[in-house]
Amino acid sequence: MIHSFASDNNSSVCNEVMQAIQQINTGFEVGYGADPYTQEAVSVFRKMFGNDTEVFFVFNGTGANVLSLSCITDSYHAVLCTEAAHINEDECGAPEKFTGSKLWDFFAQDAKLTPEMLQYTLPNLGDEHRVQPKVISITQSTEFGTLYSVEEIRALADFAHAHDMYLHMDGARIANAAVALGCEFRTFTRDAGVDVVSFGGTKNGLMYGEAVLFFNPEPARKAKFFRKQSMQLASKMRYISAQFTAYLQQDVWKKNATHANAMAALLAQEISKINGAVLFHPVQANGVFVQLPPKAIEALRKKHFFYIFDEKNHVARFMCSFNTPESEVQRLAEDIRLALESV
Amino acid sequence: MIHSFASDNNSSVCNEVMQAIQQINTGFEVGYGADPYTQEAVSVFRKMFGNDTEVFFVFNGTGANVLSLSCITDSYHAVLCTEAAHINEDECGAPEKFTGSKLWDFFAQDAKLTPEMLQYTLPNLGDEHRVQPKVISITQSTEFGTLYSVEEIRALADFAHAHDMYLHMDGARIANAAVALGCEFRTFTRDAGVDVVSFGGTKNGLMYGEAVLFFNPEPARKAKFFRKQSMQLASKMRYISAQFTAYLQQDVWKKNATHANAMAALLAQEISKINGAVLFHPVQANGVFVQLPPKAIEALRKKHFFYIFDEKNHVARFMCSFNTPESEVQRLAEDIRLALESV
Amino acid sequence: MIHSFASDNNSSVCNEVMQAIQQINTGFEVGYGADPYTQEAVSVFRKMFGNDTEVFFVFNGTGANVLSLSCITDSYHAVLCTEAAHINEDECGAPEKFTGSKLWDFFAQDAKLTPEMLQYTLPNLGDEHRVQPKVISITQSTEFGTLYSVEEIRALADFAHAHDMYLHMDGARIANAAVALGCEFRTFTRDAGVDVVSFGGTKNGLMYGEAVLFFNPEPARKAKFFRKQSMQLASKMRYISAQFTAYLQQDVWKKNATHANAMAALLAQEISKINGAVLFHPVQANGVFVQLPPKAIEALRKKHFFYIFDEKNHVARFMCSFNTPESEVQRLAEDIRLALESV
Amino acid sequence: MIHSFASDNNSSVCNEVMQAIQQINTGFEVGYGADPYTQEAVSVFRKMFGNDTEVFFVFNGTGANVLSLSCITDSYHAVLCTEAAHINEDECGAPEKFTGSKLWDFFAQDAKLTPEMLQYTLPNLGDEHRVQPKVISITQSTEFGTLYSVEEIRALADFAHAHDMYLHMDGARIANAAVALGCEFRTFTRDAGVDVVSFGGTKNGLMYGEAVLFFNPEPARKAKFFRKQSMQLASKMRYISAQFTAYLQQDVWKKNATHANAMAALLAQEISKINGAVLFHPVQANGVFVQLPPKAIEALRKKHFFYIFDEKNHVARFMCSFNTPESEVQRLAEDIRLALESV
Repeated sequence: MIHSFASDNNSSVCNEVMQAIQQINTGFEVGYGADPYTQEAVSVFRKMFGNDTEVFFVFNGTGANVLSLSCITDSYHAVLCTEAAHINEDECGAPEKFTGSKLWDFFAQDAKLTPEMLQYTLPNLGDEHRVQPKVISITQSTEFGTLYSVEEIRALADFAHAHDMYLHMDGARIANAAVALGCEFRTFTRDAGVDVVSFGGTKNGLMYGEAVLFFNPEPARKAKFFRKQSMQLASKMRYISAQFTAYLQQDVWKKNATHANAMAALLAQEISKINGAVLFHPVQANGVFVQLPPKAIEALRKKHFFYIFDEKNHVARFMCSFNTPESEVQRLAEDIRLALESV
Repeated sequence: MIHSFASDNNSSVCNEVMQAIQQINTGFEVGYGADPYTQEAVSVFRKMFGNDTEVFFVFNGTGANVLSLSCITDSYHAVLCTEAAHINEDECGAPEKFTGSKLWDFFAQDAKLTPEMLQYTLPNLGDEHRVQPKVISITQSTEFGTLYSVEEIRALADFAHAHDMYLHMDGARIANAAVALGCEFRTFTRDAGVDVVSFGGTKNGLMYGEAVLFFNPEPARKAKFFRKQSMQLASKMRYISAQFTAYLQQDVWKKNATHANAMAALLAQEISKINGAVLFHPVQANGVFVQLPPKAIEALRKKHFFYIFDEKNHVARFMCSFNTPESEVQRLAEDIRLALESV
Repeated sequence: MIHSFASDNNSSVCNEVMQAIQQINTGFEVGYGADPYTQEAVSVFRKMFGNDTEVFFVFNGTGANVLSLSCITDSYHAVLCTEAAHINEDECGAPEKFTGSKLWDFFAQDAKLTPEMLQYTLPNLGDEHRVQPKVISITQSTEFGTLYSVEEIRALADFAHAHDMYLHMDGARIANAAVALGCEFRTFTRDAGVDVVSFGGTKNGLMYGEAVLFFNPEPARKAKFFRKQSMQLASKMRYISAQFTAYLQQDVWKKNATHANAMAALLAQEISKINGAVLFHPVQANGVFVQLPPKAIEALRKKHFFYIFDEKNHVARFMCSFNTPESEVQRLAEDIRLALESV
Repeated sequence: MIHSFASDNNSSVCNEVMQAIQQINTGFEVGYGADPYTQEAVSVFRKMFGNDTEVFFVFNGTGANVLSLSCITDSYHAVLCTEAAHINEDECGAPEKFTGSKLWDFFAQDAKLTPEMLQYTLPNLGDEHRVQPKVISITQSTEFGTLYSVEEIRALADFAHAHDMYLHMDGARIANAAVALGCEFRTFTRDAGVDVVSFGGTKNGLMYGEAVLFFNPEPARKAKFFRKQSMQLASKMRYISAQFTAYLQQDVWKKNATHANAMAALLAQEISKINGAVLFHPVQANGVFVQLPPKAIEALRKKHFFYIFDEKNHVARFMCSFNTPESEVQRLAEDIRLALESV
């Protein structure tokens, strides 16, 4: 396939990461993370997030989310999230299965939670008939391509901590968020009150591997056991670790996400000029959500592979990635134009 | 680290597999397995195991075992295995957690189940107070480096099927077994009555990735959902698939396992000449289990990193892998000799 | 406490049931249901629901619902229900914990599902990233005191079966529904296409004990094991069975529910005369939901113990039971009047 | 059925308990334990076990065990128990299902754990590949009718607490143990270092209902939520509570267990006179385990209903209960004699 806007995980592995994998492919190393490459990658994370950050590498994003939630819930707890949250919609019930907890979802037009929405859950606290709200889980950047500001995250963290809850961030696209916010990772995570982060990389140029970061030692104690029990402990872990070291140390994450975000901005700009195509959500990271007439969608599908994210409103999603060429963005915009004209 | 006998997963990635990964690192592909590389890898498996084989790639061996068991158990079932089984001892309870089932373990000197041992479980059938035996899980080659013969597997399959149970094979070292038995994979799996196989590769030269093979369409129906729910669905799956195609098509598996087994045989031969070192299990694949006096173990540990597999009997495990050099085998044998002399 | 409208389970045990318990309290019987009293109770159910009905007695309503759902779900399935469903709101996550499945809840003003609402779930079918809709669970009479008609149930059953789903009925107040509909239990359950029923009794005069009824042999096969594993198998089961025989054979259920419904109708009638008190839901069974000004609620609480079912809309719930005296209904109506006047 | 030695739960409800149930069957009470009868029953327990004891009534023994274990385990933990433990053999996997933990069972001739047996589990501590030993669960009196002395319990408690584990006691027959030991309940539970007790009653004259007692506030915090989530929260709880108050306050427990134990002693005495019948375990409470030739078992089965507890060794179990008549004991002994003579 030449190109795909279906997902940023349709892209390949960026060169820096591939090279790092090859470079360490020599000799023997102890498995399961007790190797120097993993120690190095942990150090890199600790430099960015604080020396007492606990770092656990896992295989994929669902694994990262489930490991995060496992360490901060008992089975009678509830995880508060948006209806559109990846944990709620796209993980085939893995969080419920593995934690036993209920996902309590809230409709949000922009896929962002607010403390106001969550007030409704407080009467449950202490009532044995009801699940107990324990985690607020947000996605940054969101499933709709929107962003939480640092202040919005801080407000949710304050709400969480005021009620003995944790704040978890699903950072499958955290690099796109950092670039969009123009700040350090730490500023909108640990320093804004986030307790646990699923730190993604696969959607931004890695082959596989994500990291779970704990800023709180208590839940982190459980993490190594839950990682193994959730089938997320890689034997040859160095091949994940080396990817992260290359990705983080050489600012590869920034270069990649900057390009992806720029391509999304360009696509949004082009689409805004097209009659009949409506940008359904603000374009704040690397995703572009476009409302189109059903017949235009049908026509466009003959030329491009993409997902419909909102059947009711006929909203197509186009994701840009680190290696999306500008020419493909232009071609897609042109094809949208043609599809609209044809109907 | 120059060399390690601690585990065959301490080795690196073999060249053919690394090259395959690099070669496909171009352009865009649909995620989650709907790509041509995955289709190709599935075809390769189907040529080996039959056209109706259902193939599911996962991240690691624990994931492969849990996915296998999930599809063939309800939570009131029991999985029959040896005490030493990886699922019983080395997966931090993942099978119990994910399936809800009980692992019912049997002591076996050579880590091999027999129908005679399992007779004891039959009175449970139909008794609602008791877990219901449903799966016999064997490991080939075993955790103690021994082998099931084709006839032994067939006998267990017959027992299983006579009692409406399934036979599962944990094939983390299935290539070592195939080389040792000198027969096709199919001969001692599907054709011997095995229903589900965890087909490993990481311990024999892959970077990551295992496959679950179903020869029975009914449980396979559930597998795609359980794979996602068990956090084992890789987004960039082609990087797993390409490894398997290279590994299987070019007989890389055979070359690698042949070498590993040969090094184990050499090590066993050398050890058999040493007074005071006892081969604790028959050496039938790539693992060598040696009983040594505690002080000799202590002395040896200053020079080598390895695991004690049996604290009571002072048994050290040495695993050989596809890239274990003959010189290292000789060096280890010599160091064992010296360790014994020093005490 | 002299009287309570807080719940129909605040009432005592009706005389016929208490006598039945005493009468069988003699001698020895085999435990766990293999006794003649249990066989008799099963026969009574089979006469009412068909000879091939499978009947499983359990301890309580949550147990009945969880057992029902366990037999008809795998963990990657979804159970479709209303937001107000007891399984969703009042079981502390027991269904999620025990089945691993997701509860997919829909807002419904009258706590009733319709096929139209559920259309939205169909695109999930076959998509491994999404939970798979497998059960529609309805409550009859509902948590808001409303009723499904036979036709409405049939429509949901048809929708369920057209998509390879099951229809489950939470019948915690099934006797109140039968009386309100004026028909046999069978008419609005088995004959309307329901597959599994949680048949309640505790809220209508029993001491403890509910029954799960399967009209479908396949899921019923699993029920005896799941009952034990879900801690719902009573050792001295005859004391549950005897209650049901008395309750069903002597039309005690009808007498009790008729009275409870009549008291609710009377209360509704009285409230409809009071300015400022709004009947928030149609009164179709034994529950009365009244919207009152917050200050009136506060005043009323000094005289009566009751629950607020809708904090946002200030809706109080009053449940009538088999032994609610008419005088208490009149007193409550009068106290509501006085509370409204006082503010 | 006139009489049964199959289980002490084949007996009926003792008069004092039945009367207590009838006496409270009046008027309305708030459900789920917020009633004065439950408060009274809790007070009675607190007088016996200490004022800070946390008491949770549940429906049955499996429920009590699962609730106990839920509060003191995470899913990566192991519960150490004997092979014959009720939690291991007779609960259809409920503990594994609900807690996710592994039961790690040890063979013990007399069904009693010792610290020596458990030493073997300590190397697991801290190893992420292995389940983490967290609970020692003992049964008092045991499944084989034997008793732990206070000193033996204390030794296990010391071992547990030295390794950051909890000691749980399955007290399904705790009254028989108290009578046999001739001491207060508290002496061999809380004062001996036990952390959590499943306090049974159904096998000694109650209709249904058991209690979980926590002497440790931290795990008790979770208990009310896990009780509801494990389907063990009775709506009309007063009917359980009233049973316990009558059972404990009037020394009914002692009278009942004294009789049951005496009948077992008598049976043992009679059997010891019979050639060919071997008392397989010491008779220390209310169970008698007798080894008989298979043909004698066959002959005896024509006259009595009982269970074989050890198929390999042909061991029949005879349980005595609060209302086992002496004449039935004599009759059973005579029938055993005749059965032996007939073969």
